[in-house]
Formats: sequence, structure tokens, C-alpha cells
Amino acid sequence: MDFAEALRLRVARVEEGIDRLLPPSTEPSGRLHAAMRYSMQAGGKRLRPVLVLAASELFDAPGGADPLAAAVAVECVHTYSLVHDDLPCMDNDSLRRGRPTAHKAFDEATALLAGDALLTLAFEILAGAYPGSPALSAALVAELAGAAGSRRLIGGQMEDLIAERGAKATPEGLRFIHENKTAAMIAAALAMGGICAGAPDPMVETLRAGGRQLGLAFQIVDDVLDATSDTATLGKTAGKDAKAGKATYVSVHGLEAARRIARESSESAVAILRLLPGETGFLTTLAEGLLGRTH
Amino acid sequence: MDFAEALRLRVARVEEGIDRLLPPSTEPSGRLHAAMRYSMQAGGKRLRPVLVLAASELFDAPGGADPLAAAVAVECVHTYSLVHDDLPCMDNDSLRRGRPTAHKAFDEATALLAGDALLTLAFEILAGAYPGSPALSAALVAELAGAAGSRRLIGGQMEDLIAERGAKATPEGLRFIHENKTAAMIAAALAMGGICAGAPDPMVETLRAGGRQLGLAFQIVDDVLDATSDTATLGKTAGKDAKAGKATYVSVHGLEAARRIARESSESAVAILRLLPGETGFLTTLAEGLLGRTH
Repeated sequence: MDFAEALRLRVARVEEGIDRLLPPSTEPSGRLHAAMRYSMQAGGKRLRPVLVLAASELFDAPGGADPLAAAVAVECVHTYSLVHDDLPCMDNDSLRRGRPTAHKAFDEATALLAGDALLTLAFEILAGAYPGSPALSAALVAELAGAAGSRRLIGGQMEDLIAERGAKATPEGLRFIHENKTAAMIAAALAMGGICAGAPDPMVETLRAGGRQLGLAFQIVDDVLDATSDTATLGKTAGKDAKAGKATYVSVHGLEAARRIARESSESAVAILRLLPGETGFLTTLAEGLLGRTH
Repeated sequence: MDFAEALRLRVARVEEGIDRLLPPSTEPSGRLHAAMRYSMQAGGKRLRPVLVLAASELFDAPGGADPLAAAVAVECVHTYSLVHDDLPCMDNDSLRRGRPTAHKAFDEATALLAGDALLTLAFEILAGAYPGSPALSAALVAELAGAAGSRRLIGGQMEDLIAERGAKATPEGLRFIHENKTAAMIAAALAMGGICAGAPDPMVETLRAGGRQLGLAFQIVDDVLDATSDTATLGKTAGKDAKAGKATYVSVHGLEAARRIARESSESAVAILRLLPGETGFLTTLAEGLLGRTH
């Protein structure tokens, strides 16, 4: 099977899981559930949940648990962060994945509540999906809540916002933002896949380390694309970083240096992921592909 | 020890737990952590976390776990829901517990992120506080995420908002809103106390049932106070339900009937809580006191 087909199969599995694990729009509150589904079913690369599945596949330990629920939980947290990030008081964006953002398709209050509900659902899924393995549930909740919390994802978003409002970001400040806003969740996705498969702690730590490098590369490529691509190709508003005076690797280091750092981080990620057991081809091809993406 | 002193001791214990379990403002992102602490340390009745402690105390089973972390987690979720509820796109309120609301004291984006971070922290606390009992962590996460999720707390808020915007609420619709917006979290608080203490499942279910009645009484008293009290006494804007055309027990049933239903729910709560083992005096006095409160 070639890489594109392997990717397609995993994305399809994630989307089936999303459809199954989200409450139906027919159940009250129908409007809230419709908004949750609207945002979760808007497509997108499904990078984080695919990473959960791919990391889990490296370890075919007996007694490993199905990583699909963990994959859906990670996508719930990622989607909630986008929904809240798009709100008028944050980035005030009207386009996401080529469609109106949640607060444009519904309204601001509904988008706020749908984001809250997706974040909560992530933990409800993790607590409920592994009834025979409470230790697995607890470890997954700890990993995801840590990565999504005030010291990581939300802390990175807060500092990003502060940088946007005032002083020019330093390279160190920018690295803090990218490592927390983006890389922490990608590291957690890989770690959660390993945890589901019962990977030993040092392997889970290797997954986290590879994920941090991959996440950094991913975010820098995002910065480069925002500066060099157009809205139709991206499926979201292009050029908005510069317009917002946002701190990016392009604004702080320049375009060529940003491209070089992205390449170095990506190579470092691949080198770390190759240390893992099993067939790492899918994971390393995915990591390499992120560098050459156009959206 | 009289009731007031017993209550004061439990509130003090909750506040010590909050101070210990919230990230310090000196840790990045400092602004985010300051906003989280601002909202969590605004005082308030601490009803939900005190209920966690009080329910736990009924069962002095050997091997029971310290309920304080669970109590703080419940207060984190309650506070996040208030911070988001006060935002301009929701109730747009500028006063809470006698102080400026989070988005007035900081700004809208910071309040949004602080709310997100408090919700996430609740689950991080539950996953981390009981390392020797992953089954306890998983059960507490399931209970709290269920009560705070789209079928309960957030679903109730969404339907409340819809009722506010348009058609007159039916008694059944209003009951759905109050049971989910308010009673679900109070029921979960009591259940989580029991779960920490290792209470058997039928006792946890009795705690939930008593909590639902107590929560309903509490919300109806809130409706009555909003219609009859003043802003200085309440510490939050009075009369705003009627102004917003909000569905309340007063607007749907009238003031006298609302008072009667609150009394009946409160009596029902006390009767259910008396079925529990141990010294239920503190819990039933607390429940009775909620009916006579002025703020």
C-alpha cells in the first residue's frame, strides 16, 4: 500500500470515530450538538488523530488498547482551540478550512459553548472508552490535559496574543509560543498513541521528543505559508499574520532562515522517530510530507 | 461546633486547596495564571466544593481518598462556566461577586482563555491527584465531564440562551434548563465526594438524586432573588433576568409558586440526604440554609 492510501485509510477511520463519538444533533441541545459537529466535520488534515493511530501501530504489544477514542479526543481539543481562536475577541476570522467559521455559521455564543463542549467531551471520551483499563484512561487524561492546559497550549495562545498587541517578540519568546501553542499537542498526540499501545515510558518520551520537533517544523511551515500562499490554496485567510503584526518565524528570522529552521526541525523529528521500534515508514513519510505541504 | 463554624472551616480548606493547586502567577503565562486566580479567588459561597467535602465525610470507609482535589476541580469548572457566561456574547455582565467580571478586569480574550484553562485544569487535577488510584481518577473525570458536558451543563446554557432569544419557555423546557444548567453540577459535586470516600454505587446514586433536588431548589431561589433583591445585596446585577426576558421560575410560574416549588425541592433534597449513613446534620442544615439565603 502506498503512503497516500495508508493516510486515506487512517483519516477515514478517524472520521468514522468522530461521527460515532459525537452526540447526535437530534439529541438536546440540538443546536449545540449541530455546532459541535459542524466544526468537527469540516475536514482538515486530521494530522493529530492520525499521529495517535500511527504511533500506536509501532507497538504491537499484546493487550494494547484501541487508540481511536484517544485520537478523536485529541481532535476534539484541537478543534475547540480553533473555534475559540477564530472568535471576534481573538483572531476574528471568518474562514476556516474553506468554510465559514463556527461563529459565522451559527453565532458567537453558540461557537463559544460548542468549543467548551468539545473540550469537555474530549475528557468524557477518554474516561469512558477504556472501562477495563482505568490506569490507561487516567494516563491519557493527564497527557491531554497537560498539553492543552495553561502551561502549554493555552499559555502559548496567551503569549501569542500579548506579542501581537505590543512589543516585538524575541526569538526565545517566539519559540516559547510555538512550542506551546502547536508543538505540545502534536507531542501529546504521538505520546497518547504510544500509551494506548502500552509502550514503555522511554519510548513514550521518545515519541514526545519527536513530536515537539515535528510540531515546531509544522508551525514554522504554517508561518511560511501564511506569508507566501493565497487564501484559496490555504482554505483560511492568508497574509493575516503580517497584517495583525503577529510574531512569526518569518517576521523574526526572515523567510529563508524560517525555511531552514523548519527543515532542520523536520529532519530532527524524523531522526528521533526512526529510533522507535516497528515500521516507522508511515510516520516518517508523514513528517517529511508536512515540510512540503501547500496548505 | 456549630454549623457556621463547621462551614467556615470547610470553606477555608477549599480556599487553601485552590491556592495550592492553581499555577502561580509568576509562572508563564503570567497574565493567564493571574486571570485564573482572579476569578477563582473572588470568594463566593464555595457551595459545590463544600458539598464534595461534606458528602465524603459521611463515609468513613478505610482507604478513602482526600476529596480536596476533587472539590477544587469542581470549583474550577463552576468558575469557568461563570467567566464564559459573563462574556459580552453571553450575559454581558460586568459585576460578579461584587467585583468586576474577568473580561472587565482583564479583557475579553484573556477571560476566554482563562475560562478554557480552568476547565482543562479541573481534569488535569483529577488525573494527577490520585496516582495510587487510577480507577478513582477515571471515575471522577467521568462524573465531572458528564455533568459539565453538552448533555448537561453546557446543554442547559445553550437552551437557556435560546429561550432568552425567542419563544416563551414551557414549564418542561424551563425544568430541562435548570436541571442541566445548575442541578447537574451540584449532583456531581455530591457524587464525587461519595466516590472519593469509596461509597457503594447505590449511595452515590442517592447523593446524585439529593443533589438534583437541591440544585433545582438552589436555582429557583436564584430566580426569586433576582426578581426581589437588589444589586448590592446580591453582589451581581439584580433584575437582569426580567430585563433580558429570561425564562425563570418567577416568569413562568409566578413568584408565589416559584417559592413553593423551591421549598418542596429543598424538602425533597433533605429527605433524600437523610437516607445516607453517617452524620448528615451538616449537609441537611446546608441544604435548608440555601432556601433562606439572601444572596
